[in-house]
Amino acid sequence: MDKKYNVLIVGATGLVGQELLSLLETTSIPIASLTCCASFRSKGKTVKFHEETLPIVELDPKLFMHCDIAFFCAGGTVSQEFIPIARKHTLCIDLSSAFRLDPDVPLVIPEINKEALLHHQGVIASPNCTATLLLMAIYPLYKEFGVRRIVTSTYQAASGGGITLIRKLLNDTESALQGHKQSSESYGFNLFLHNSPLSEEKFSAEEIKLKEESKKILSDPSLSISATCVRVPVLRAHSLSVNVECAKDLHLESVYTAMRNMPGLQIQEDLDAALFPTPFMASFQKETFVGRIRLDPTRKNCVDMWVVGDQLLKGAAYNGLQIAEQVIALL
Amino acid sequence: MDKKYNVLIVGATGLVGQELLSLLETTSIPIASLTCCASFRSKGKTVKFHEETLPIVELDPKLFMHCDIAFFCAGGTVSQEFIPIARKHTLCIDLSSAFRLDPDVPLVIPEINKEALLHHQGVIASPNCTATLLLMAIYPLYKEFGVRRIVTSTYQAASGGGITLIRKLLNDTESALQGHKQSSESYGFNLFLHNSPLSEEKFSAEEIKLKEESKKILSDPSLSISATCVRVPVLRAHSLSVNVECAKDLHLESVYTAMRNMPGLQIQEDLDAALFPTPFMASFQKETFVGRIRLDPTRKNCVDMWVVGDQLLKGAAYNGLQIAEQVIALL
Repeated sequence: MDKKYNVLIVGATGLVGQELLSLLETTSIPIASLTCCASFRSKGKTVKFHEETLPIVELDPKLFMHCDIAFFCAGGTVSQEFIPIARKHTLCIDLSSAFRLDPDVPLVIPEINKEALLHHQGVIASPNCTATLLLMAIYPLYKEFGVRRIVTSTYQAASGGGITLIRKLLNDTESALQGHKQSSESYGFNLFLHNSPLSEEKFSAEEIKLKEESKKILSDPSLSISATCVRVPVLRAHSLSVNVECAKDLHLESVYTAMRNMPGLQIQEDLDAALFPTPFMASFQKETFVGRIRLDPTRKNCVDMWVVGDQLLKGAAYNGLQIAEQVIALL
Repeated sequence: MDKKYNVLIVGATGLVGQELLSLLETTSIPIASLTCCASFRSKGKTVKFHEETLPIVELDPKLFMHCDIAFFCAGGTVSQEFIPIARKHTLCIDLSSAFRLDPDVPLVIPEINKEALLHHQGVIASPNCTATLLLMAIYPLYKEFGVRRIVTSTYQAASGGGITLIRKLLNDTESALQGHKQSSESYGFNLFLHNSPLSEEKFSAEEIKLKEESKKILSDPSLSISATCVRVPVLRAHSLSVNVECAKDLHLESVYTAMRNMPGLQIQEDLDAALFPTPFMASFQKETFVGRIRLDPTRKNCVDMWVVGDQLLKGAAYNGLQIAEQVIALL
């Protein structure tokens, strides 16, 4: 481990980029240099890394030539344009949805399928935030009992829509508190079905990502998922209500045993104090939290649970960093 | 219909009582007199009814003797104490949970089981708000195709916790906006599993109400419901994500036909504009709204839908008033 790495962040001023920058301060990856790129809107800005002030530089394909690891956190369009060039020179870790379903690109949650990293061809994708949190919670059941079908409803925070959506939530809420008349699109004390485009079958792109990415990560095309994705007026951290149908009848104790052994997953249940995971408590945490794990009284092979995790960390930046750390460990 | 009715509201200053008062201004029930009671905290207060200013009077059993219809909106404890006395003199319409599962008390959503009103013995209960909204949406499927099992996750507004919870939401949100440090119990931009007491099987009382009341209203003890009830930072109107398993395979067109014919249920779907029900739009409306009705790709006999309704109106005061109007129509 004498090698030091030249690291590039594309989209360093966005919500995920900022989290990644801060995570890189404590990573085990030996960093030789860090270069931060962002869109022209961030021209002239700087970012802090340890004690240093780094300039935001314009994204130029030449940068890839002197780079070992490039994190792409600037959205699908930028990834689609630059990763085909970048992958020739550097390992690309893509946090956008651009390459997630590409059969030549591993889609990885290190706690679940790090073996997929072995076959990368210069690009590794980090999954959709909600898919990551869902799989972190159901994977121990998948491994132990087999999972046939998942019915899930999500409670997704504004952070998933970037700084623009966070600002809209804050502004609309402030306006509602001041007693101003709200429009029907107001996000203040209001919620919405996820507004990504609908398929012909009336599932939103977010719901389809959840399904297709889960199948790919588990290498299980037969897995059935029916999801309803909802944007709630929460600033950060996504929650999911999950009903899991397994291949076997379940006993609650063995469900707990399986879940307790899952790295990165924390059971948070204090029945007496009625303390279960909340977005507030999960914010800024790297773990995925699960609670109210209970057998579904309507089916012997089903279990209900409540899952919460920080969308920007395990749902994005932290999972991306874990991928990089794993690849280096595998070298 | 020459008879005029002496009406009593117990709990007239609460959220539901206030809605009822306002609905009574336009009811078809001919009102001879209206008496408004509330707890000692409301002593000296008045309420408006049409142009009149009515005093809040103390709840005294003598009042029931000169009363034809008494609405109980002051919570379970008050209902439990006073309804056994009141029912000897007046028709009691109970909006609390106190008598809902009493086998001698009809539990009625007029659009669904108004025939149960015929057998009342002085007390009729109006169901839990979430149960009412759920059943308004699934009843047409129940009637047409048979419903075997429901998996639902709720997005319940602060209004369900009364004025205290609304104030907490407003205060905590204001404090969060001002940048004050929040406690882990903060409701500002945060959500929680419904905090009603948990059963041994770890279902909350709210989740059990949803299940048991639905079975009673549909007279179907075999109906399976697995619910996860969640309190979201929304001021008014509850939402539900619902997966319904029917006894037959479904075609989307026949699902729509059934739902279109359900009185009080409104399909709200503009696919091009991605316009579906929201709490904001459903607030202050008497209808229950449903949208994103789609076949569950994982099961041929399952359908997913999104349901929103005003918890204080169809979920409480309006359903209570409809019960009274129906009883009078049946006289």
